[in-house]
Amino acid sequence: MSGYFSDIAPVSYDPQAEGLAFRHYNPDEVILGKPMAENLRFAVAYWHSFCWEGGDPFGGRTFDRPWFPADTMALAEARADAAFDFFRILGVPYFCFHDHDVRPEGATLAESHDRLNRIADVFAQKMAAGGPKLLWGTANLFSNRRYMSGAATNPDPDVFAYSASTVRTVLEVTHRLGGENYVLWGGREGYETLLNTDMKQERLQAGRFLSMVVEHKHKIGFKGTILIEPKPQEPTKHQYDYDVATVYGFLKDFGLEGEVKVNIEQGHAILAGHSFEHELALAGALGILGSIDMNRNDYQSGWDTDQFPNNVPETALAYYEILRAGGFTTGGTNFDAKLRRQSLDAEDLVAAHVGAMDVCARGFKAAAQMLQEDRLEGLRRARYAGWQHPDAQAMLAPGASLSAIADSADARGIDPQPVSGRQEILENLVNRYV
Amino acid sequence: MSGYFSDIAPVSYDPQAEGLAFRHYNPDEVILGKPMAENLRFAVAYWHSFCWEGGDPFGGRTFDRPWFPADTMALAEARADAAFDFFRILGVPYFCFHDHDVRPEGATLAESHDRLNRIADVFAQKMAAGGPKLLWGTANLFSNRRYMSGAATNPDPDVFAYSASTVRTVLEVTHRLGGENYVLWGGREGYETLLNTDMKQERLQAGRFLSMVVEHKHKIGFKGTILIEPKPQEPTKHQYDYDVATVYGFLKDFGLEGEVKVNIEQGHAILAGHSFEHELALAGALGILGSIDMNRNDYQSGWDTDQFPNNVPETALAYYEILRAGGFTTGGTNFDAKLRRQSLDAEDLVAAHVGAMDVCARGFKAAAQMLQEDRLEGLRRARYAGWQHPDAQAMLAPGASLSAIADSADARGIDPQPVSGRQEILENLVNRYV
Amino acid sequence: MSGYFSDIAPVSYDPQAEGLAFRHYNPDEVILGKPMAENLRFAVAYWHSFCWEGGDPFGGRTFDRPWFPADTMALAEARADAAFDFFRILGVPYFCFHDHDVRPEGATLAESHDRLNRIADVFAQKMAAGGPKLLWGTANLFSNRRYMSGAATNPDPDVFAYSASTVRTVLEVTHRLGGENYVLWGGREGYETLLNTDMKQERLQAGRFLSMVVEHKHKIGFKGTILIEPKPQEPTKHQYDYDVATVYGFLKDFGLEGEVKVNIEQGHAILAGHSFEHELALAGALGILGSIDMNRNDYQSGWDTDQFPNNVPETALAYYEILRAGGFTTGGTNFDAKLRRQSLDAEDLVAAHVGAMDVCARGFKAAAQMLQEDRLEGLRRARYAGWQHPDAQAMLAPGASLSAIADSADARGIDPQPVSGRQEILENLVNRYV
Amino acid sequence: MSGYFSDIAPVSYDPQAEGLAFRHYNPDEVILGKPMAENLRFAVAYWHSFCWEGGDPFGGRTFDRPWFPADTMALAEARADAAFDFFRILGVPYFCFHDHDVRPEGATLAESHDRLNRIADVFAQKMAAGGPKLLWGTANLFSNRRYMSGAATNPDPDVFAYSASTVRTVLEVTHRLGGENYVLWGGREGYETLLNTDMKQERLQAGRFLSMVVEHKHKIGFKGTILIEPKPQEPTKHQYDYDVATVYGFLKDFGLEGEVKVNIEQGHAILAGHSFEHELALAGALGILGSIDMNRNDYQSGWDTDQFPNNVPETALAYYEILRAGGFTTGGTNFDAKLRRQSLDAEDLVAAHVGAMDVCARGFKAAAQMLQEDRLEGLRRARYAGWQHPDAQAMLAPGASLSAIADSADARGIDPQPVSGRQEILENLVNRYV
Repeated sequence: MSGYFSDIAPVSYDPQAEGLAFRHYNPDEVILGKPMAENLRFAVAYWHSFCWEGGDPFGGRTFDRPWFPADTMALAEARADAAFDFFRILGVPYFCFHDHDVRPEGATLAESHDRLNRIADVFAQKMAAGGPKLLWGTANLFSNRRYMSGAATNPDPDVFAYSASTVRTVLEVTHRLGGENYVLWGGREGYETLLNTDMKQERLQAGRFLSMVVEHKHKIGFKGTILIEPKPQEPTKHQYDYDVATVYGFLKDFGLEGEVKVNIEQGHAILAGHSFEHELALAGALGILGSIDMNRNDYQSGWDTDQFPNNVPETALAYYEILRAGGFTTGGTNFDAKLRRQSLDAEDLVAAHVGAMDVCARGFKAAAQMLQEDRLEGLRRARYAGWQHPDAQAMLAPGASLSAIADSADARGIDPQPVSGRQEILENLVNRYV
Repeated sequence: MSGYFSDIAPVSYDPQAEGLAFRHYNPDEVILGKPMAENLRFAVAYWHSFCWEGGDPFGGRTFDRPWFPADTMALAEARADAAFDFFRILGVPYFCFHDHDVRPEGATLAESHDRLNRIADVFAQKMAAGGPKLLWGTANLFSNRRYMSGAATNPDPDVFAYSASTVRTVLEVTHRLGGENYVLWGGREGYETLLNTDMKQERLQAGRFLSMVVEHKHKIGFKGTILIEPKPQEPTKHQYDYDVATVYGFLKDFGLEGEVKVNIEQGHAILAGHSFEHELALAGALGILGSIDMNRNDYQSGWDTDQFPNNVPETALAYYEILRAGGFTTGGTNFDAKLRRQSLDAEDLVAAHVGAMDVCARGFKAAAQMLQEDRLEGLRRARYAGWQHPDAQAMLAPGASLSAIADSADARGIDPQPVSGRQEILENLVNRYV
Repeated sequence: MSGYFSDIAPVSYDPQAEGLAFRHYNPDEVILGKPMAENLRFAVAYWHSFCWEGGDPFGGRTFDRPWFPADTMALAEARADAAFDFFRILGVPYFCFHDHDVRPEGATLAESHDRLNRIADVFAQKMAAGGPKLLWGTANLFSNRRYMSGAATNPDPDVFAYSASTVRTVLEVTHRLGGENYVLWGGREGYETLLNTDMKQERLQAGRFLSMVVEHKHKIGFKGTILIEPKPQEPTKHQYDYDVATVYGFLKDFGLEGEVKVNIEQGHAILAGHSFEHELALAGALGILGSIDMNRNDYQSGWDTDQFPNNVPETALAYYEILRAGGFTTGGTNFDAKLRRQSLDAEDLVAAHVGAMDVCARGFKAAAQMLQEDRLEGLRRARYAGWQHPDAQAMLAPGASLSAIADSADARGIDPQPVSGRQEILENLVNRYV
Repeated sequence: MSGYFSDIAPVSYDPQAEGLAFRHYNPDEVILGKPMAENLRFAVAYWHSFCWEGGDPFGGRTFDRPWFPADTMALAEARADAAFDFFRILGVPYFCFHDHDVRPEGATLAESHDRLNRIADVFAQKMAAGGPKLLWGTANLFSNRRYMSGAATNPDPDVFAYSASTVRTVLEVTHRLGGENYVLWGGREGYETLLNTDMKQERLQAGRFLSMVVEHKHKIGFKGTILIEPKPQEPTKHQYDYDVATVYGFLKDFGLEGEVKVNIEQGHAILAGHSFEHELALAGALGILGSIDMNRNDYQSGWDTDQFPNNVPETALAYYEILRAGGFTTGGTNFDAKLRRQSLDAEDLVAAHVGAMDVCARGFKAAAQMLQEDRLEGLRRARYAGWQHPDAQAMLAPGASLSAIADSADARGIDPQPVSGRQEILENLVNRYV
């Protein structure tokens, strides 16, 4: 026990509570056939909650945590103690981490591997003792200066090799800890300037690297899902995994669309010029929706603000697309969100998660009800009903040709008339649920 | 002869001229083995220069052209007269048009076809008499209210059929006029709200439609290139052909990446959050670079401003990527640019094109010299030189595995050190050419 | 009676209704001491609902209204009939219009004046017969080509004079109809390019013009408020009334900060890089908050989308700032919102307003409760409590000097420690109300 | 001598040089009556070039400088040695610094003051020995955690007092070193959330603080200019000194518009949705143009990228507005630009500045020639010529009234016709100079 959260009692479901409590998230309440906890699959992100110090490009650490700067294994263990205390207070079923979050980097590659394995032992013990499960693990291939020009896409082949060694270790640790997914976020897989960049070469490197990660996953018997996390830019000017559509083209190129899915983050969707629900719906349509990083980007700020989600109607639309795509299988709701740097206190960290979990719960419940009542889907089906007609189906079938369709249109002298898209009526309908 | 431009003499190359002249564009000057005219392959866009009336969402027509409103065939011919006069004044080798630009829509589909063919006869005559060639033709499947919910992606199968008939006619007219490409810009192939949209269905419709266009092209013996023009949004909230990477994934999905290329517009690249040179370089790397719509979007305006290009350093970077990809084959430089709505006079239209052609010529000449002198490419090759080593090549070859690479990295105890990316030095180098 | 809405019954408050009804807006419910109708003061915008044809920059009219194109006085009266039928169905207490919305422009300035006065007679009759009141009138000084380079800021003094004549007439009509405000939106008061613009001269023109409008208001005994509506850009590249802060500086420059207030639009706030609540809070702090144009801009679209509001939490924050500033006096909630161009039907127009009024009502009720319960304000006051200390007050008082404050700080050897800003806790608190 | 730049010779003007040289910046060349060095008044920014370590939000230090981490006075002196070596290599006439850049913060306020004074002694000696002059000094009131909620606008009065003490010391040091300006950039003078913010109170604090700084300047006899540096956001969500127009309104409110000018940064202008030349032209029109921070923001990145300028046409437009406003008096061209974090080498730092100085020199020379040849200004004057007429002047004069102008317009039956704004022709004209 770390003692850091000793003033804060475990949070429970109590809609009438005046103080800290879940007012909407009731883990055991059954919705769509399973408990909310299994529907939402909440995870805490180790990095934001236990590693980030409150700095930004114009100022340094604001937070005062007893385990900072966590540059020794002893402090890393103290941090783990605090983290697991925190997981217990929230009652979350999952957590997520990067290697870099949980152990200080060693003087050598070997020492870094060793330290990660030692911390994994600590985690394993805590997990066995009732701690949460691992939603996903990942390797941080972007913070150290060796990665400044990319990891798999680095112009230096040794960085590619170094990355391979690191990913192998973290993937195996993830496997050992029962992780349900493994994530690759290409923080530096992109470029700062086209003038020094060979995109074709770097794309090839990225494709081969990912293929080998998939192969290794099978070799070691890891049953979890490999996930790519799209982001358009920041830290680099342009990141290769720009958005869902871009990742899909990349996967197709290397024949990996059946092996790899996406981990979609609200903030990254916004930065790419999309709504969160767009990215989710597209991934659903393409069959590559894996998991989500739930947070909120400030619409007026042009960088990744990673705020805790706080807008229920938006959250409802997100979960609606997830449910339309069948809900989570190995994926879940990871809070890739950080406190504002002025939120200094332990209470802030707990309250931020509690509020976010409630926002998600409200959104999810609205989404589930919308789906069950089927009004929205009924209207959608009606809009496309014409395509159910055999003549219409035939136009999309293999034998169809432009000239045959054109001949028929000309012969019929068609003059199709538009019908209302009813957007405002649909928006009103959604507002009856949220 | 229309008389509209009767005060304006044909523009010629004269670097010392005080008045209207090309100061940089010398069509006959040989660069990289061919005349500038063949390198740049300039085209005038019929729609902006002869159809747009100067309106915007907050006000109507400002231009006063004798052929407006061009709602009769006689006025359409008057417009054609003016257009070909204009082409002659500029001496451009190409023009581009939509069906909708050149003839008033008929009361029926058949009449629309017929009118297009009649105008095509007029064009053919003028082209034979020394007019420019056709860089590309295209069908406007977005202005008429029947297309308000999409053309190929419309929920109404009859609109799909109507679009097929229209595209067949325009493709065949393009073929008849010797067009070198055929473009599809999906102005309404997207959605206004996800709430009424079935993206999977619409994607299928778009894929089948494009496949049939390709098939029809071969059937009629059209040797030109089929081009898709990416744009992220506007008029719709989200357009399916968002950017080059998105189009690539779509082409891969339908097995069309060897059949279809992209027509990239500077303004659309900007709206998608990319630089123009990024989109060109990516298309080059993916082997789908076809043609360009040259213009300039205001970086501070969030809509498609379609201004004439006026920044030489940016233009140089664009042509540099085009040259790195091998230069134009069937493609060219189409000015998809319109006058500001306060630029009322015939002289404005001529001067805008002359200035733009000079800006392109300056950019192209700088790009050609950069490529010939090979300094930039030399530095790029040096940066990736490590990947020429057989051990490095082996890591990307089919037999490689994550575990083998990791074992080797561990055994070697590598600690790769970063080297400078030299961005500012490269930017300085470029500035010596522009 | 127009007959256009004959299928649609007047909408009433019925929280349990299955069909078209107000579920949250109960005009007679008393909140904060007055009925909701008087708190919210809803108005319908004539232009979007009865003039806009569904066009956008890439396509023309989609709506099919019997009064289109409204280019005769008879059609203008038919439109007025439909508009007042619509007002009655909604039961809104107010409407707003531009001169340009309600009458076809005349062949001469005199005829335009005359036509406006004739339509004003029609309105007066309908208003006397139980129609809504006029929240504000305004002159359209941006659609006609004469205004393409500005109205008050035009380089041509005759356009300035023409604008003066037009504003006089519309201001007097507004006064005659009992309008409670008069709005100036400077749609073309800005520039397309700095290269041809004299900002100092144009600022002087704008300042003098506004000063004369204020003087004329007093001369004719108009008791309503003169409002400027900020917008950063579109249609022009840069508009002089960029945002609230910019307007404030302009008013100060011409000594008008006590005479003129602002009409703040959500969509314009977003386009200027601000949140709606920011603009409202700033105007409140500066004492110039007048009225609002309620709508919603798509956060992913860079132009003015003018959608109906549909996000309750955002609406709640907006009304919270309005209430903190004392609530509306002469101002109100004008729906400067238009249907999506695919929403073709009369029912769409009614439903869009009903949904929007409900969203506003929900937001307002949450805001009122937050204010009454005073938790948020209590926390805010506590944060600044240190400034209540006399020593702190003295630092802000006239006699204070940098050297005295610095001497004291040095002598005391202060080392101030940060305290949590509690942002997430405050956001959670807000979420308990919405 | 630091030895850090020992491999690099002083850079001189040599248009034909192959290696590192000024190709365009010739400090002694007389333009518009004075040497280029006096026109451009270049300054190096201490913070980016000697303090920034290459970190970003996703990774730490990449640069390897012998004086890092500069947390002792000895290392601070080693850094000063390197900085002055660098100034000598470039031959720049000015430099700029924050207190925080040049000395490690002390354990107490008093020690911080003392350390700054000791470093100032070092600077004074180096400046006397031929080093550059001080363009401006400034206090860093944003990096330390005590400022996380603002400096002058902090809810804690002690932070206000601490800031006053700090500014007094830095202002006096600036005065002692002969600084020609003193800058205030309100890095944390803004808010993260409106929910905990009292904008009216914070505005009052900021106004009083600035008033006292101005008073103190006079008290100590500092003849330099007090400058505010606008920025819209980052690090905070909203910064009070948003842009030039906002600062102007603030200055007017506190009667400081005759005392304080603005230091305009290209990157900040872009982030606020303006062009650089807009902010310069507006400040010129308002009489508050002071100095510039020259850099370039990536148009596709939503945060402050602080790149070295590299686009000559844009730079030309900026200097053109500066020259139109009369050129610099106490202000100058400070490179508030940092290397990309992959540009590791000493040579990168030198080359980045050399390239930037050349880009500025090219832009300045083009601007000067445009101004001298007066074509652009001639066209601008012609556009507004109508306002020279006595009747037009009378409309703007004090006695004018809306009703008199309207009566005259009505009587004359005016129907003003638009004339071309000639934007493209003007852009072409500019392109003849750049």
